[in-house]
Amino acid sequence: MPGDHHPTRTTVSFDTIARPEIEISRDDRRRRNRHGSYAVWLTGLSGSGKSTLARRLERILFQRGCQVFVLDGDILRRGINHRLGFSRQDRDENIRRAAEIAALFVEAGLIVIGAFITPYEAVRDKIKEIISGENLYEIYLRCPLSVCEKRDPKGLYKKARNGLIKNFTGLDDPFEPPRDASLTIDTDRLTESEATAAILNFLLQKGLL
Amino acid sequence: MPGDHHPTRTTVSFDTIARPEIEISRDDRRRRNRHGSYAVWLTGLSGSGKSTLARRLERILFQRGCQVFVLDGDILRRGINHRLGFSRQDRDENIRRAAEIAALFVEAGLIVIGAFITPYEAVRDKIKEIISGENLYEIYLRCPLSVCEKRDPKGLYKKARNGLIKNFTGLDDPFEPPRDASLTIDTDRLTESEATAAILNFLLQKGLL
Repeated sequence: MPGDHHPTRTTVSFDTIARPEIEISRDDRRRRNRHGSYAVWLTGLSGSGKSTLARRLERILFQRGCQVFVLDGDILRRGINHRLGFSRQDRDENIRRAAEIAALFVEAGLIVIGAFITPYEAVRDKIKEIISGENLYEIYLRCPLSVCEKRDPKGLYKKARNGLIKNFTGLDDPFEPPRDASLTIDTDRLTESEATAAILNFLLQKGLL
Repeated sequence: MPGDHHPTRTTVSFDTIARPEIEISRDDRRRRNRHGSYAVWLTGLSGSGKSTLARRLERILFQRGCQVFVLDGDILRRGINHRLGFSRQDRDENIRRAAEIAALFVEAGLIVIGAFITPYEAVRDKIKEIISGENLYEIYLRCPLSVCEKRDPKGLYKKARNGLIKNFTGLDDPFEPPRDASLTIDTDRLTESEATAAILNFLLQKGLL
């Protein structure tokens, strides 16, 4: 280590210009991984199956040799977004950050699966700007409110009905159905494995795997 | 697709409990990638060589077959952190988010290289909490202010000297040297490729590659 001895001081060699030629590009990563890198964004009501399908799809893609990662609203709210609440503004910021992070994973060569309610069309449009439409596949998990409420995997509908949660999507806050989802899946009419297979086939048909 | 026909409605099959057994773990990813996943955090003054060494290290690790990605302060400030300024509070939040994102990449099985000035010991401690110390290697790029200012790769020292930037690290805001960096590199006494080799050797010696 330096300190005791004094080698000839090198010139100031750390250069002063960015050198894109040494940067690893998204395409370098895609070639290495042998699959595209993009975001699969699952949108739908609480209880429509987003987290479940995200994990199933992740496992299938991982087993096929893909670099894949799930970004889940609940996980981000325990980490980077832990100071955000559920006002319209905070929910939008929650999703904006998720999209920015997804864009980094796409840049890193991964398939990133987003599992977020994403109830507003305006916010979904913003996601398309951030990730860039060509790298984003929006998948609408359509499911009647009554079914989602019956499932109520986290007990949130019950809390909302009891007035413990306000602005709850589907109850006192709207879910705007996507105008141009890449794929729609009726999760009340398919099993988990059928729904996962439908997404897998979609990705295959698009040449993404 | 559903709509025209009416298959027997499945039971509400999307389950109501998290099933960790279907989740891909960090260890699954590490085994697949055949290297550890961790953060290499480069800390040092503006002009100390963080971005340059981060890109060189990324290229070398990529060529060795690693999944690797650089998180760079400038890039995050154009994306997820674009609304943050340079007050102490905003700078701390900038780094906190960077660390949260780095933790996600570690979870995803990558080697993530952070290139951030990270001038305060308290913030570096916070990073250790977020990423968890065992997955974090802090590398201090030590370089005299006079050399950094001579390099001035982005013209920031000049702007700061002319009063156009306030709270500039090394001038009117302190850089607290790390108390317990995993490795210190004197970037004024090594060439870029020597400095990169020193980091590479450190990772090899730690059994991280």
